[in-house]
Amino acid sequence: MSYKAPLKDMLFDIQHLANIDQVAQIPGFEDAGFETAQAVLEECAKFNEGVLAPLNFEGDKNPSSWKDGVVTTTPGFKEAFRQYVEGGWQGLQHPTDFGGQGLPKTIGAACGEMLNSANMSFALCPLLSDGAIEALLTAGSDELKAVYLEKLVSGQWTGTMNLTEPQAGSDLAMVRSRAEPQPDGSYKVFGTKIFITYGEHDMAENIVHLVLARVAGAPEGVKGISLFVVPKFLVNQDGRLSARNDVHCVSIEHKLGIKASPTAVLQYGDHGGAVGYLVGEENRGLEYMFIMMNSARYAVGMQGIAIAERAYQKAVTFAKDRVQSRPVDGSIKASAPIIHHPDVKRMLMTMRAYTEGCRAMASSAAAAYDASHHHPDAGVRQQNQAFYEFMVPLVKGYSTEMSLEVTSLGVQVHGGMGFIEETGAAQYLRDAKILTIYEGTTAIQANDLVGRKTARDGGQTAKAIAGQIETTESELLQQGSADALAVARRLKAARQALLDVVEFVTANTKTNPNAVFAGSVPYLMLAGNVVAGWQMARSLLVAQEQLAQGVDAGFMKAKITTARFYADHLLTKAPGMRDSIVEGADSVTALALDAF
Amino acid sequence: MSYKAPLKDMLFDIQHLANIDQVAQIPGFEDAGFETAQAVLEECAKFNEGVLAPLNFEGDKNPSSWKDGVVTTTPGFKEAFRQYVEGGWQGLQHPTDFGGQGLPKTIGAACGEMLNSANMSFALCPLLSDGAIEALLTAGSDELKAVYLEKLVSGQWTGTMNLTEPQAGSDLAMVRSRAEPQPDGSYKVFGTKIFITYGEHDMAENIVHLVLARVAGAPEGVKGISLFVVPKFLVNQDGRLSARNDVHCVSIEHKLGIKASPTAVLQYGDHGGAVGYLVGEENRGLEYMFIMMNSARYAVGMQGIAIAERAYQKAVTFAKDRVQSRPVDGSIKASAPIIHHPDVKRMLMTMRAYTEGCRAMASSAAAAYDASHHHPDAGVRQQNQAFYEFMVPLVKGYSTEMSLEVTSLGVQVHGGMGFIEETGAAQYLRDAKILTIYEGTTAIQANDLVGRKTARDGGQTAKAIAGQIETTESELLQQGSADALAVARRLKAARQALLDVVEFVTANTKTNPNAVFAGSVPYLMLAGNVVAGWQMARSLLVAQEQLAQGVDAGFMKAKITTARFYADHLLTKAPGMRDSIVEGADSVTALALDAF
Repeated sequence: MSYKAPLKDMLFDIQHLANIDQVAQIPGFEDAGFETAQAVLEECAKFNEGVLAPLNFEGDKNPSSWKDGVVTTTPGFKEAFRQYVEGGWQGLQHPTDFGGQGLPKTIGAACGEMLNSANMSFALCPLLSDGAIEALLTAGSDELKAVYLEKLVSGQWTGTMNLTEPQAGSDLAMVRSRAEPQPDGSYKVFGTKIFITYGEHDMAENIVHLVLARVAGAPEGVKGISLFVVPKFLVNQDGRLSARNDVHCVSIEHKLGIKASPTAVLQYGDHGGAVGYLVGEENRGLEYMFIMMNSARYAVGMQGIAIAERAYQKAVTFAKDRVQSRPVDGSIKASAPIIHHPDVKRMLMTMRAYTEGCRAMASSAAAAYDASHHHPDAGVRQQNQAFYEFMVPLVKGYSTEMSLEVTSLGVQVHGGMGFIEETGAAQYLRDAKILTIYEGTTAIQANDLVGRKTARDGGQTAKAIAGQIETTESELLQQGSADALAVARRLKAARQALLDVVEFVTANTKTNPNAVFAGSVPYLMLAGNVVAGWQMARSLLVAQEQLAQGVDAGFMKAKITTARFYADHLLTKAPGMRDSIVEGADSVTALALDAF
Repeated sequence: MSYKAPLKDMLFDIQHLANIDQVAQIPGFEDAGFETAQAVLEECAKFNEGVLAPLNFEGDKNPSSWKDGVVTTTPGFKEAFRQYVEGGWQGLQHPTDFGGQGLPKTIGAACGEMLNSANMSFALCPLLSDGAIEALLTAGSDELKAVYLEKLVSGQWTGTMNLTEPQAGSDLAMVRSRAEPQPDGSYKVFGTKIFITYGEHDMAENIVHLVLARVAGAPEGVKGISLFVVPKFLVNQDGRLSARNDVHCVSIEHKLGIKASPTAVLQYGDHGGAVGYLVGEENRGLEYMFIMMNSARYAVGMQGIAIAERAYQKAVTFAKDRVQSRPVDGSIKASAPIIHHPDVKRMLMTMRAYTEGCRAMASSAAAAYDASHHHPDAGVRQQNQAFYEFMVPLVKGYSTEMSLEVTSLGVQVHGGMGFIEETGAAQYLRDAKILTIYEGTTAIQANDLVGRKTARDGGQTAKAIAGQIETTESELLQQGSADALAVARRLKAARQALLDVVEFVTANTKTNPNAVFAGSVPYLMLAGNVVAGWQMARSLLVAQEQLAQGVDAGFMKAKITTARFYADHLLTKAPGMRDSIVEGADSVTALALDAF
């Protein structure tokens, strides 16, 4: 089997870090306790291991192709998508009102990880549909909801996000696509959109594009952008498809990775104008788009964790199988599987610790999301909202940056074989590289962390999290095992480093923005490191307790070792990062432009 | 122009760090002073910028191909190789006795960097020829030298290294290819070799394979391996080519990168036996091969620097051109070239500091090589030999690992465009990934650093280098500028971290090898970081002095800023690495094998 879902680890996080039983006390989630989580995850694992994982390598070798405006996906994808729809997986977290299953993100996030481990190129199609669904749920009129939501939630139709244009990437103020109001209340949309994931494909009968464009006379910049629904096929009042709309795929990109996922250039309105429908109000498009983006950013973070997990599994399998050289301690008197070599263990442990740490971080963030949206108490909602929003740039930025290191180590474990494409390890590295770029680069996440998530509230949320970390430190000291004490020491130093940086950021964002933004990505990486390390420390406490109760000793011991490894080898980076951020800004910005 | 050789920086290192004028005092190098270096580098730049650099992207798009045993290289490669040979570039560092130019490595290394920046896939062919030449020079009989050396040094023929077999990668004890002695003194060679760079191609009229194989009855393991010359075409006594030898290319690999460089599977002896000639004595093959390997390891380190330089240049060009978003400090009231954004500067400075630091390290190592081989005083030779040998795993390991980070940042600077293959940034990342693997993985370099270079002499060489670093710290304190003082502080902390680790390594290699080898790669990365940072500190001192004398203010100021950046952002990692190595070994090796 090329992928086996890490159910034990996922369920450990869901139970002990995300506290699913608390989530299940929220009205609407009464049936979503631990047992439901277990049942759903097991079913999800079966589908992803059996159907999607085997198609992953094929997608790389035989990517989506374009001919005369038609995109043909990798052989097997269409049938797999049919099964995905049949299984009801698209609707997992969406409202039951529109045919979804209404499960909490605490469960859904783990399913998302599996989907992306199994086949990231495939998973992008549902991921974008999720975004379109969320935008319509939040801002769509009842009419738009009625026409589009059930079909999107079932997976019969898929969705896309159309932001980027050749001159407008991170800078959406530069969007030039335009929309002309029509007498019937619809609009005609014109323009070119690039980098549109699954902008054209053959897996669903209709594609619902959500498109940013300017209405004539709108203010300049981001405050003059509106959001439109532009379906590939127009929809009759009875819900049946009618005419082909004036949106056409003129090419797809030749990319480093996620090759099976078609990345389309879409041309709107070359034959009279594409029919579009305004979502919400004019000029509030960016606001709505951010709803999709925030959901998508968390999901991209999960992609990082997912691809790291798969790279780890492949590397472990190879390391147990490949025989080469004697162990340095003389414990085996002949060439041995390379997993016996300490440096191979170091690489595997690094991959493992990053992956488990980020999974733990994402799982606890998912629980906060559920509480922030559904908890009956407004105060609890608000508190969880602040926590979740602080987490989004960390889950997105840190989990994807670490996935580059993990997938690169995955190639390294394979030695020369890793460089040969037939081995499959290199694909994960190539696929992962998009994750630090799309849905906002790591720098864009870091801007968000600095501006909206730290400076705006004077570092209050960050300090509150540091306070929770300090509580965990006390618990570790109280627990008192050698591992707990060692982790406590590293966690304390890392937390103090983080607090210094938060102080630096809040003190200087307005007065010396260059200095703060010179360290914005390092701040994100530090915060992600500390929070993931904290979740590993919490995991260690749980594991010690479970071990004492005799529960699953093998798993719990491994968790303790992995948490210790995280502290010894990853949290130890924190003080140096602090120095670099707080004391190193000048040398980032001092070089004259013409000296580069 | 897609690549411009960084001549100023190279010549700065050659003049001030490698002290070329001292090298030119060594008998045989009298004509190889600064002016020669300048003239050779300028000529070399012209060739590489004009002829090889433009073929680099083409090589990726249109790689070498195999059909019926024949390998056809990328269009343009054959003609470019003809010009390379005509220019006499293959013989740059080889003895004048065999038609070479006999230049010092201090000059040759910079030329090697240019060649690899321009076209790494192309450069691999000459790189392997260099290895074959060195092995024959050291261990070949006069007859072998007479037949092969001039043709190899001129570039008329090319060379290869045949070590790897499917079961024997890092573990050469497992080599199974065999050689049967013939009555005429030659051998018949049988076996399969894989991963043979330029093992078959159409750029030269003959290919000289250096092949590891066992003679019947040889001892088991690495002490029973002999080295053979097996030419593709046999050579008559008059030097003309005769019959095709029984070595055939049965396939080439489909790889992540360096696609234009054919990686061959070679089959020896399927039609009666390939004619081979013993190099040196039987069973000493590995020893000779290490001569090639050591030369090749340094060269691969240069490849890391080379690809980092090219990725940096491409990223700078893009960052100056791509307009997106307003600067955070409000200095420009409209969307600006992204190089104005602090995080883009941070990425570019990181790329620059790594590249310049490793170039400085490699340049000073090259001067030590020259002195170790050619200085008239045996004591000076010995001292330089120890320094150079310590440097080889750092130049190879650290420069290639950093090249992964640098080329990945190169893609990141390009945003979404970086992920599109037509942009060309992704090629550098794909190409770079082989560098941490071939000619000994980073772990193999780290074994060498721990065993032969540190433990064997009780850390003496390492401590001597630390002593030199301390001298540089004193000079920085004496210099007294804010930059010098800041760098001195970071360098001191980093040196102390390194000394702690050296202590740990020497104390524990015998008694607790698992603990030491759990930290062997981090030790290599720490040592590389500190030594490169030290060379940047030396550069800062030179630049301050030159600046005071009014020499090239723009360049010198940039050097000072880059050295400061190195200290603030890279040397700051050292103390955390120390903690991880000295205190973190247990968590590397504690996990039970079946828990992975």
